[in-house]
This record gives sequence, structure tokens and C-alpha cells, in this order.
Amino acid sequence: MTAPTGGYARVTMLSIIPVTGIGDVSPGDDVAAAILAAMARSGLALEDRDVVVVTHKVVSKAEGRIAAVATDRDYRDLVESEAEAVLRRRGDLAITKTKHGFVCANAGVDRSNVPDGQAVMLPIDPDRSAHSIRRRLEHETGKHVAVVVSDTFGRAWRTGLTDVAIGVSGFAPIADLRGTTDMYGRVLDVTEVAIADEIAAAADLAMGKASGVPAAIVRGLDLAGEGRATDLVRQPAGDLFR
Amino acid sequence: MTAPTGGYARVTMLSIIPVTGIGDVSPGDDVAAAILAAMARSGLALEDRDVVVVTHKVVSKAEGRIAAVATDRDYRDLVESEAEAVLRRRGDLAITKTKHGFVCANAGVDRSNVPDGQAVMLPIDPDRSAHSIRRRLEHETGKHVAVVVSDTFGRAWRTGLTDVAIGVSGFAPIADLRGTTDMYGRVLDVTEVAIADEIAAAADLAMGKASGVPAAIVRGLDLAGEGRATDLVRQPAGDLFR
Repeated sequence: MTAPTGGYARVTMLSIIPVTGIGDVSPGDDVAAAILAAMARSGLALEDRDVVVVTHKVVSKAEGRIAAVATDRDYRDLVESEAEAVLRRRGDLAITKTKHGFVCANAGVDRSNVPDGQAVMLPIDPDRSAHSIRRRLEHETGKHVAVVVSDTFGRAWRTGLTDVAIGVSGFAPIADLRGTTDMYGRVLDVTEVAIADEIAAAADLAMGKASGVPAAIVRGLDLAGEGRATDLVRQPAGDLFR
Repeated sequence: MTAPTGGYARVTMLSIIPVTGIGDVSPGDDVAAAILAAMARSGLALEDRDVVVVTHKVVSKAEGRIAAVATDRDYRDLVESEAEAVLRRRGDLAITKTKHGFVCANAGVDRSNVPDGQAVMLPIDPDRSAHSIRRRLEHETGKHVAVVVSDTFGRAWRTGLTDVAIGVSGFAPIADLRGTTDMYGRVLDVTEVAIADEIAAAADLAMGKASGVPAAIVRGLDLAGEGRATDLVRQPAGDLFR
């Protein structure tokens, strides 16, 4: 079997550990320090190759990406200003393309888990956010880790929402298995696995939506490569459904 | 906080355990027995509330959903006969709606991890398959478990593929959080989480694509409710992108 490039090695077991007790985050706060402090209070320590998944909401808050929205009209105006394009609209829902290229509802502007009268936007550059958090985590702990900044997106053809990666640092978000052969020696049909999105989804299972747990550690993967979450954006030329 | 219906309780830690050593599966084989035998050889036993995730390929093989495809033309003909509709076509790739309602490439017909000259189709009724496997697992072990049958699908706007649930038994595949409030007491914007798809994605991280590991145990969730994977299919009336 050819070793995958930017892939993920076979694992014996994965652990997904929610990081509880991070509490609320305010503009200017150090997200990496907040995660490490909460982990320490739970008796947890980072290990080499851990993937630290953090929901964008605390990252956005720390980066001051909060706006006052007194009315629904204010909210809609904020969505319009955050969106690069509106692809579809139905009632209050706008399916938008963000300035990063992500296709999601309402340009990722969200009023849950934010004080009343405020809304939180996506980070300006979530890959840069992930990179900054990773550098801080590695500096503080001496461990080599990866970071995923996640958000909750809908899908075109499936109901319900899942968490996906909007920022990554420390690994290639798509495991490129081209040239890898299956158990019969046949080259795989499936060659590009969006492992960053699978990691975000796995972390969400341990975090929940209402519980105020904005981070989780995914332990047991052996990730490789480098890349950006914008690698996960299908370019319009390859998009049959826009 | 209102308890979610069909939701998932807060967890302290999730474990995702690959089930190695299942080996090849032939028509008529008992998938549940094969999983339990492989687990036993690894010193593993099912526990109450375990979610057993199994890739559809072994389920389809056991159900005899295999066809001879001597040529690429045979393969294309098989895809046509398995598809209810072809939504888009580009070169060899057909984006199809299957008879179950799933939107995926080539009607889910796959030539990886199948002997040369053969292709494997999706199960006729993957929810029924999941249910049968669950009943067999519960009968053999006396434990209450859930089952997910997974496949690897592409997405409209994002590159790479992720594993999703095409069959479920023993829980509601969408966690309905309507009425749940966030940490500020505000009703959540995100109310329907596709936990079955997140479980399938998490399991894939432990299985890989080339390694011949067709099952994994997701341990630590506390799932509720009942439902079918077809609940995850967005109906055409709610689909803005078909």
C-alpha cells in the first residue's frame, strides 16, 4: 500500500475530549491560554499530535468580531455586509458565499451563544486564527499540535447541520489518497477525504450546541502535511450546483 | 436548559475504536457475527449505548448487492439502473439521486474494495440493514446499541468527501434542539444537528479508506429517539439547489 501524502495513519483508538470550563470570552482574550487554563483545571494536558478543535464563536469574540444588532433589520444588514454574494434566499434565510468562499447560511453571522442585542461574525481569516492559536499552544506546552476552527453549516441535499472546518493549522485538511490501493490492490475510487471536516464533526459530538463547551481535543490521529481550510472550498469552475 | 428530544447528552469523553480483522465478506455472511467475532479476537466487547458504525460495502456484499462489470460501459449501465435521476454529469462523474433519495456520485456504485471486474451497489434498504444488524448484535450480546451504515459522499460546495449515514437504527439521526436555550438563555439558532452524519464522519477517522477496517465503535454518546437515515434526505420542496 502506498503511503498517503497529507493523509492520516491507521489508528488504534481515537479519543475526543471536551474541554469544559472555558467560560465566556471577550475581545482581546487569549483563546489558547483560556483553553490551556481550562484543561489544567480538569487535569488535562496537551500531547504531541493532539488536534485542538475550537468553535469559531470564541475565536471571533476574542478577535472582536461582534456587532450590535438591535433589530432583525440590523441583523439582515450585517449579513448583507458580511456576504460576498447571496446564492439563494427564502424568508429569513439567505444562503450566502462569504468573503472566504464558504457557502453557508446568513454569511455565518450568528446570534446564539452571544449576549442579547449582539451578533458574532466569522473571523476575518480563520486559517490565520488557527495558526495563531497553534503557535501559542505550542509555545506554552512544547508539544506539536494541530488546530481546527469549526463552524456549523447546512448542506445542499441533506437535512440537519454538521460542524466543518473553517480554519486549520498544522496539517493538510484533505487527505490525498491518490495512488493508494485497496485491499484487492485496486486504486481507490475515493481519493480525497476531507479529514478536517470529519475532525470538526467528531469534536462537535463531544461539545454539543447548548452546553457552553467551545473546544475539544481529538487524540489518536497522526496527521501530516500543511494546508488551509480554504482548500476545502470548491471553486466555482468545479461546482456543478451554484 | 430544556432537555433536547432525540438529542445527545453531554459527554465526558468519546472513544472511537476501529474493529480490525473482519476480513472479506461474501453474500450470505452474517455481518453482526463477523463484527462480534473480530471484536472478540481483539479483546473487545460491546457495551450499552455503543454505536456500531459499519461501512455499507460489507453490508452490501453480505446482502449480495454485487454485480459483474467487465467494462466501463457495464459500470455506467449499472449506475444508470441504480439511479432514479441524474442531476448533473461531467465526464465519467454522474451526480445522481438514488432510489432512497440520497444525492451522491454514480448512484453509490463503487469498484474500490471489491474484486476486479465487480462493483458493489448500495443496500436496497440501508435502514432495514442497520435494524437487522442491531437486532442481531443485541440478541447476541444482551446490550442496547445503535447502528449506523455509512458511505462516503461528496458535497456541493466543499471539496473532499466525508462519511455520512445511509442507514441508522436505535436513535434519531437528527438531534432536535428546538426550544433549547444557549448559555445566555437565548433560543438556539441551530436546532437540527445531523448527529448520525457526525458519527459516521468520526468513525471514518478511525477506519481509513484503504486499510480494510469496515467498522468502528463510537462509545460515550447517550443517544435518544428513533428514526431513519432517510430523515436526513432534504425533500425537493426544501431543496434550493437541485
